[in-house]
Amino acid sequence: MTDPKLDRLKTLVGEVDDLRKASTVLFWDQRVMMPPGGAQARAEASATVARLAHEKFVAPEIGELLDGLNEADYDYDSFEASLIRVTRRDYEKATRVPPELVGEMNRASALGLSAWEPAKESSNFETLRPHLEENLELRHRYVECFDPPDETYDVLLDNFEPNMKTAEVREIFDQLKEELVPLIRELGEAGEIDDSFLHGEFDQEAQRSFSLDLLQRFGYSDEEWRLDETTHPFMTTPGHRDIRLTTNFRPDNLSSLFATMHEFGHGVYEWGVDESLAGTPLASGVSLGLHESQSRTWENLVGRSRSFWRYFYPRLQATFQSQLGSVDEEAFYRAVNKVQPSLIRIDADEVTYNMHIILRFELEQDLIEGRVAVADLPESWNAKMQEYLGVDVPDDAQGVLQDMHWAAGGFGYFPTYALGNVISVQIWERAREDLGDFDERFERGEFDELREWLREHLYRLGRKFTPQETIQRVTGSPIDAKPYVRYLREKLAPQAV
Amino acid sequence: MTDPKLDRLKTLVGEVDDLRKASTVLFWDQRVMMPPGGAQARAEASATVARLAHEKFVAPEIGELLDGLNEADYDYDSFEASLIRVTRRDYEKATRVPPELVGEMNRASALGLSAWEPAKESSNFETLRPHLEENLELRHRYVECFDPPDETYDVLLDNFEPNMKTAEVREIFDQLKEELVPLIRELGEAGEIDDSFLHGEFDQEAQRSFSLDLLQRFGYSDEEWRLDETTHPFMTTPGHRDIRLTTNFRPDNLSSLFATMHEFGHGVYEWGVDESLAGTPLASGVSLGLHESQSRTWENLVGRSRSFWRYFYPRLQATFQSQLGSVDEEAFYRAVNKVQPSLIRIDADEVTYNMHIILRFELEQDLIEGRVAVADLPESWNAKMQEYLGVDVPDDAQGVLQDMHWAAGGFGYFPTYALGNVISVQIWERAREDLGDFDERFERGEFDELREWLREHLYRLGRKFTPQETIQRVTGSPIDAKPYVRYLREKLAPQAV
Repeated sequence: MTDPKLDRLKTLVGEVDDLRKASTVLFWDQRVMMPPGGAQARAEASATVARLAHEKFVAPEIGELLDGLNEADYDYDSFEASLIRVTRRDYEKATRVPPELVGEMNRASALGLSAWEPAKESSNFETLRPHLEENLELRHRYVECFDPPDETYDVLLDNFEPNMKTAEVREIFDQLKEELVPLIRELGEAGEIDDSFLHGEFDQEAQRSFSLDLLQRFGYSDEEWRLDETTHPFMTTPGHRDIRLTTNFRPDNLSSLFATMHEFGHGVYEWGVDESLAGTPLASGVSLGLHESQSRTWENLVGRSRSFWRYFYPRLQATFQSQLGSVDEEAFYRAVNKVQPSLIRIDADEVTYNMHIILRFELEQDLIEGRVAVADLPESWNAKMQEYLGVDVPDDAQGVLQDMHWAAGGFGYFPTYALGNVISVQIWERAREDLGDFDERFERGEFDELREWLREHLYRLGRKFTPQETIQRVTGSPIDAKPYVRYLREKLAPQAV
Repeated sequence: MTDPKLDRLKTLVGEVDDLRKASTVLFWDQRVMMPPGGAQARAEASATVARLAHEKFVAPEIGELLDGLNEADYDYDSFEASLIRVTRRDYEKATRVPPELVGEMNRASALGLSAWEPAKESSNFETLRPHLEENLELRHRYVECFDPPDETYDVLLDNFEPNMKTAEVREIFDQLKEELVPLIRELGEAGEIDDSFLHGEFDQEAQRSFSLDLLQRFGYSDEEWRLDETTHPFMTTPGHRDIRLTTNFRPDNLSSLFATMHEFGHGVYEWGVDESLAGTPLASGVSLGLHESQSRTWENLVGRSRSFWRYFYPRLQATFQSQLGSVDEEAFYRAVNKVQPSLIRIDADEVTYNMHIILRFELEQDLIEGRVAVADLPESWNAKMQEYLGVDVPDDAQGVLQDMHWAAGGFGYFPTYALGNVISVQIWERAREDLGDFDERFERGEFDELREWLREHLYRLGRKFTPQETIQRVTGSPIDAKPYVRYLREKLAPQAV
């Protein structure tokens, strides 16, 4: 880099990046390590660091530097062009919204979250209702800060899946709905699969040890990763080469194995971002959809595959001899792939999960477009649950109150989960074209070639290109639901035979 | 508070305090949790946060607010007067030093620290020498930023023991030297105390569990404290009610017990600072000497007392039956109070420890006044070790290279360790005057009254007053070596009989 303006820009966004890393450590520590007594001081410290990061990013100097820089002076694929392009887009979005509104949104979000937990606990929607109304009202004011979109929801979606339009998501989800509703019915009619052996007593230390062995096969090392316990698992990266996974070793089932692989997928995406992007806004996954595609790849495409369990199941049996000693590999494989409509999104199987998302996506649009009043949300929720999954919602705790996202104002977030599923199989198929079938490798416990292919083709790109450009570059085509639906059918339809 | 200038000052220093808390978390995490791969990103994030904290503190607005405020408008003891007074002093010191010099000092300190570890490893003083010279040169430039002091060393000392003069420390240390050198000789002539049973195999998990029981008796709770492991134990507080102790459970001895009580003493001081001072520069211990007085109180005055072990020794025996089952309480008590001149400061006993400090204090002055050249430092070190402790230094790793302080530029820090010893007994005697003898309480495992007395009389004050004022208020007299020397004689002289 020779342009001093570009050097200066890099310095300034590097400073913002440092503050964001500090925020990340504060957040991780709060969730994983902090004694409860530290809550108040931490809330203040976190708010100050986040505010300073925002102030530093929207500083006029960054705007002036961007005015004086032209991405067209550099090769489109270059670091320089990407840095200018991405920073410009982030800057324009960030400066559109007055700091007062940002403050109000953060405050309403914190209050909503505080109200959510007791509301869920007591299954009392009415106590959360005013917070949802306030959050929605603020989202309308937020939307007004931008040029008029095709659909109001576009502006919200853009915060999680940049550049994507609501109409595009709708088209994909309509395809999914059309295919999955009958598939779920077929699978339901085929009779119950026995998964009773997945419930019982599972020593948590043994789960931890098995999970670490598994992660090490994937590419985890103590040199660059951590695995800790928390109630709601998440992944975060306080720095390049410092990847923190969390999981929840439940004493009575084996769900932690899949949660751990899920978080590994998020972690390995961040881990694989090219070193040259470190310390810039380019150094992370490009969208929540792409991120979820990788968590789902490692959790489902790898971690619920037959060949994966060919290698790991004997080891798991040896670890939990009394619970699994008499369960054969095929029975275990079918159990961890059991499809069954249920009430709770985060416990849902690979197929019905998508319907939970589609329901939320549709209701979010209804809310933001004023077609459904917040007061009527539980009723709409319950009706759609019946329509899409055939289940009756007994109370709001197990219905509309189950997730924290809306309480925190996170409208537009949910669709990225199902988009991730769709994208995961597109990328997977492309990797298989290059590398050949994975089964033999997985059966030997070898995952390095897959991981390195993903790093080379996806992870290293970070945020250099838009999500759409990234998908196009990795897969050779735009986002497309067909491979995913085909994958589900091929994998699961035999169970219905 | 009604003066808006004071409110504004509180807001600004609160912001600085938030950044310092973020720094604290980054530091703790780095030492205790971070995978090694995170080092580079962490170094950058920490530097940025520390720099912003400094920039925000030396901002002209704070100076203008201080110009418009007068501590004399408030009662001397009030929060308001203290906040103005302390902030003014901190601000005047911080703004005296040009940011470039601060940067150079930080850089030289980091380089010196990096050079120290291999220099110590290979016992090669020559590789550290240029760094010490550079650090000293920078300290001279630092000293020049201030009004001419009585002695150059005054300016360095002030960073660790505010308002104290070199001459005052010298007077105290001369008294110590006069009393301790003969006492150490007497104790040496009295013959060897058997402490062989303190060395052996001690299960680390059992040490941890015993330490936690002990700490809980002192006042530790999971609600507000943590205890973690690290190579070089330290205490840090990322927030009011978030006290983090670290210790080192060595597999082959019980030194961790004393290290843990030592760090508890630091922690309980911070824990006891009055809640009303939280988020301001007043919310911490007032000087390193006072801080050390509390770590030494809980490590030595409590933790090496007969009555303490009357309660805990049966429990320790039960924990380490095979190692201690046949060792009686008195033998154990004498072993953990064994006085024996040795090479390494951090492993030294309660008495000889002071001589390690006095040696360093004297050499620091020789260096800064140019009476000893850095190149001649090992020779001077070894001569003083012989003179004060009668030991021959076999190599620089066990001599002048053993501590990291000078490599990091920390000249003026060491004397606070021995000052802490001196102060600890002054405060202890005052507490005993109020509460009566502690022995019966300690024998029952009761430490609450002592802790609460210390909180009420010392901890809650935080930095509201100067260290000298604080000592005067707590003990009714200025700093004085006599009680400490008397305590050592009374406790240890019988061993020489």
